[in-house]
Amino acid sequence: MRIKFQHSLDELKERLLVMAGLAEQAVQRCVAGYAHRDAVLCDQVIASEPAINALEREIDQMAGDLLATEQPMAIDLRFILAVLRINGDLERVGDQAVNIARRVKEMMAMPEADMPVDIPRLGALAGAMVGAALQAFIEGDAERAQQVLLLDDQVDAMNSAAFKSLSALIQQRPEVTTQALNVLIMAKNLERIGDHATNIAEDVIFWVVGADVRHGVPAELQLEHRVA
Amino acid sequence: MRIKFQHSLDELKERLLVMAGLAEQAVQRCVAGYAHRDAVLCDQVIASEPAINALEREIDQMAGDLLATEQPMAIDLRFILAVLRINGDLERVGDQAVNIARRVKEMMAMPEADMPVDIPRLGALAGAMVGAALQAFIEGDAERAQQVLLLDDQVDAMNSAAFKSLSALIQQRPEVTTQALNVLIMAKNLERIGDHATNIAEDVIFWVVGADVRHGVPAELQLEHRVA
Repeated sequence: MRIKFQHSLDELKERLLVMAGLAEQAVQRCVAGYAHRDAVLCDQVIASEPAINALEREIDQMAGDLLATEQPMAIDLRFILAVLRINGDLERVGDQAVNIARRVKEMMAMPEADMPVDIPRLGALAGAMVGAALQAFIEGDAERAQQVLLLDDQVDAMNSAAFKSLSALIQQRPEVTTQALNVLIMAKNLERIGDHATNIAEDVIFWVVGADVRHGVPAELQLEHRVA
Repeated sequence: MRIKFQHSLDELKERLLVMAGLAEQAVQRCVAGYAHRDAVLCDQVIASEPAINALEREIDQMAGDLLATEQPMAIDLRFILAVLRINGDLERVGDQAVNIARRVKEMMAMPEADMPVDIPRLGALAGAMVGAALQAFIEGDAERAQQVLLLDDQVDAMNSAAFKSLSALIQQRPEVTTQALNVLIMAKNLERIGDHATNIAEDVIFWVVGADVRHGVPAELQLEHRVA
């Protein structure tokens, strides 16, 4: 009985990692689509949305069934709740990538203009946050998850800088306003991907050490805990 | 035992409604703060964030304890899962309101400029979506929840229009660029509040009729079901 349950938990984790792979791929592709003005990559991102949505529902169903049929306690319960939340965040990461892909395609119809925001760098940073949060999930490593939280400040700072530099650009060159606004929204989308990575990292900590770290790390949080 | 469980569910619902009240109030205040350039209202929104965050944790804890100590099945399990999700969405609604309040305060330091976006109307619409989704939750009314999903298209359409009109304004009057970008971001924040209301409505349907309506309504969804 317990062996079967443990097997089901492993299966749930495996499906979530497939979901994570799709979401990460979507982020990489939309940013590469922007960097190389590549409509094929953008179309691949847009086409991946139904698969991500279907997988989200499947994972929610699996997790709900486990809650209903087993009586998970303590760390197993926290694991399933964490999977439910991470699943939702990954779906939203995919949504943001689709938004970016659509915007890149729109921009490809406009004259190319130099932009004072390094979208590929911001994209790489947001993507790295998602990757690190998932690595923390795979390894049950709360310390690694903690490091993801620190990266979020960098993404936020790049975003504030983007707001200022784009605002200045528009005033100097009003003819590229539409391109600049698109870049502003794309930077916002990448910031939200970073926020989702933060959520995932917090869920890993919640699962592993049983602490709810949202809105500030409680003083008693011990990061020696690890699950192999 | 079951009576005690039912009592706990009622208590959970009540706490979530307190949370909802705080989130709705924050939305109303930040939009009124914009309309009347009222810094006091904005400060109230910003000051309400810790209370909303604390309540989110309390509700998550209550729901987690119920999952751990009882063995909720079927509709009760779906109710608790819906509360967990709605709780997260309400906290994010509060976050968006805080973002708007901060932006309004920044704008008050700049020269006033006429903007081609009716933020109060967009705010009223997003706020009404949240209110209707919560009313559907209170009444367990899937049909009312369904209506919320339709309103989301209006919010999205107003947002697309905002992007275009602000883009045109900036090209005509580059000197109001910063104000226009702030309004653009605020419109995006309000759109996200509408998205959270949509999520809440979907969770109500999931709870009441047991259907997962995210990403398209399944054909078999019958909306005659109601929970009194």
